[in-house]
Amino acid sequence: MLTPKPIAVTMGGPAGIGGEITLKSWRRRNELPVPFVAIDSPDRLRSIARDLDFSVPIEPVDNPQHAVDMFPDALPVCNIDMPRTSRPGILDQSNANAAIASIDRAADFAKRNSVSAIVTNPIHKHNLYRAGFTYPGHTEYLADLCGANVEPVMMLTCDGLRTVSITTHLSLREAIRELSIERILSQSRIAAHSLKQDFGVSAPRLVVAGLNPHAGEDGSMGDEEAKFITPAIEILRQDGLQVSGPMPPDTMFSATARATYDAAICMYHDQALIPIKTLDFSGGVNVTLGLPFVRTSPDHGTALDIAGKGVADETSLIAALQMAADIARVRGATAQ
Amino acid sequence: MLTPKPIAVTMGGPAGIGGEITLKSWRRRNELPVPFVAIDSPDRLRSIARDLDFSVPIEPVDNPQHAVDMFPDALPVCNIDMPRTSRPGILDQSNANAAIASIDRAADFAKRNSVSAIVTNPIHKHNLYRAGFTYPGHTEYLADLCGANVEPVMMLTCDGLRTVSITTHLSLREAIRELSIERILSQSRIAAHSLKQDFGVSAPRLVVAGLNPHAGEDGSMGDEEAKFITPAIEILRQDGLQVSGPMPPDTMFSATARATYDAAICMYHDQALIPIKTLDFSGGVNVTLGLPFVRTSPDHGTALDIAGKGVADETSLIAALQMAADIARVRGATAQ
Repeated sequence: MLTPKPIAVTMGGPAGIGGEITLKSWRRRNELPVPFVAIDSPDRLRSIARDLDFSVPIEPVDNPQHAVDMFPDALPVCNIDMPRTSRPGILDQSNANAAIASIDRAADFAKRNSVSAIVTNPIHKHNLYRAGFTYPGHTEYLADLCGANVEPVMMLTCDGLRTVSITTHLSLREAIRELSIERILSQSRIAAHSLKQDFGVSAPRLVVAGLNPHAGEDGSMGDEEAKFITPAIEILRQDGLQVSGPMPPDTMFSATARATYDAAICMYHDQALIPIKTLDFSGGVNVTLGLPFVRTSPDHGTALDIAGKGVADETSLIAALQMAADIARVRGATAQ
Repeated sequence: MLTPKPIAVTMGGPAGIGGEITLKSWRRRNELPVPFVAIDSPDRLRSIARDLDFSVPIEPVDNPQHAVDMFPDALPVCNIDMPRTSRPGILDQSNANAAIASIDRAADFAKRNSVSAIVTNPIHKHNLYRAGFTYPGHTEYLADLCGANVEPVMMLTCDGLRTVSITTHLSLREAIRELSIERILSQSRIAAHSLKQDFGVSAPRLVVAGLNPHAGEDGSMGDEEAKFITPAIEILRQDGLQVSGPMPPDTMFSATARATYDAAICMYHDQALIPIKTLDFSGGVNVTLGLPFVRTSPDHGTALDIAGKGVADETSLIAALQMAADIARVRGATAQ
């Protein structure tokens, strides 16, 4: 390969901060190891740049590969048609399909190997639901685009901590109901495989969280540890994996505990997300494991309340771009 | 009052690290604003001191007030009989009643105003259960000792964050089932009252957590926000309290968010505990609000695995002693 492949960056919810942080990330392009191409409306990005008084030249491209040479001088954009001009902070259902089309196109580029990874800007799910979107989030939608056999795994990362949530966008009540030995096994195995393949960890150490306070304290507060978690850990150990747990959920994220494992397998969304966002709110990155291509995203939402004001923080998008480039590099190296 | 009242420090689980960290805290007595008296077996503490090669003179006392003058030169101890010599790390059911007697005696001193506060060392609940103890923890037991009308509130504190859990030692499944408008109201009101009375916050700002990921995202993931949490917040506001929420549980503990409130009202044990222990594992303090006396404790367990080795960290007990002294002082001042 003579030239590096670019990363595709999706539009995200058009009313959110996606356009602004994409422009800001291009302005910090010297911190990025690989160029990126926005999958967005060039007119929309020009308008955001104008409103924020950013001097960012926007250059439409058809082929992502053309983005590479252009990237130092202009932000390359693969066009997505917008029926209406998007306005920051104001949801517009008629633009919901453009947000979905951007994800579709990025995934298509990735499947055809035209980009090395995709990084998705946050979407406003409720607006997409009203437009007929039926997926709980990006993670599940991308998995579906990749075929029936794909089981996606949501990993959150920040400096010094990686967590996986075995259920993602479910109510807490449903997340408890969905707990099973099979789910813990498959998500832990995908996480262990990805730690080797994507993160270069040769002998991954996993820790599995309990569900209940104090991991149930020997069964006195809940039986899910005995029914699902401990049996799953035993099977994973028989597979030869280094796994500890069930760990009391409140003690497993201390600085001392964090140093003892490469990833924490968590039982529900907030068990995985609270420690990451408490430690590093702006630099956290969401990585989807189990897909045939590399996908990361910033771990924040559309932030409609601050959209268009020029104050959105691009730190997490920059971190997501850097991590996508790192994973693509490591995955490429381990595959050869 | 001519002399300050001491703080009572309970024995905790005799096989745990309680004795060791009590001795270590006495050695750091110049960092403590108020003397303390251990409610323990003098022989047991002497034996621990000998095994660890600590030179700590132990002086039995009957009246806690006598502890004050003695404290600079010796660790004052109100005697609790032990049927058997306790051995570090080895649970012994015959000593379970001594651990309970120590709590009873400390609470009795506090109710009779002979001590200014009580600080409890961690107990091993499972060992107490086998001895017939039926309470989920200290919090509920102390409330019961204080009478039927007492509703205890578990507050966790570390530098820059206070959290309250509206349910304490229940399985996660039961904690969801126990959620109610009434419970959120009463716990929030006790928390707001305590912020004024005990922490000197004149106009407390509360934030109430959602239960579900993204606080349910407008009802697409769970209905507890709409059914219980939002209605409770509205009633609290009508009362004149400053309350925001329901907040997405994963974003509310970021450094920026933490600066906007005085206490976070959490829906379950780990939602309150994970951020505290992730931020500050060794310095966290547990405060029981709603009791007629001041009670704090370190936020760790008995740590049987390291008991007797001399490596137990007294930081959290020191922090608990300092906080108990602070609260007793502020409460005394606001009561006058």
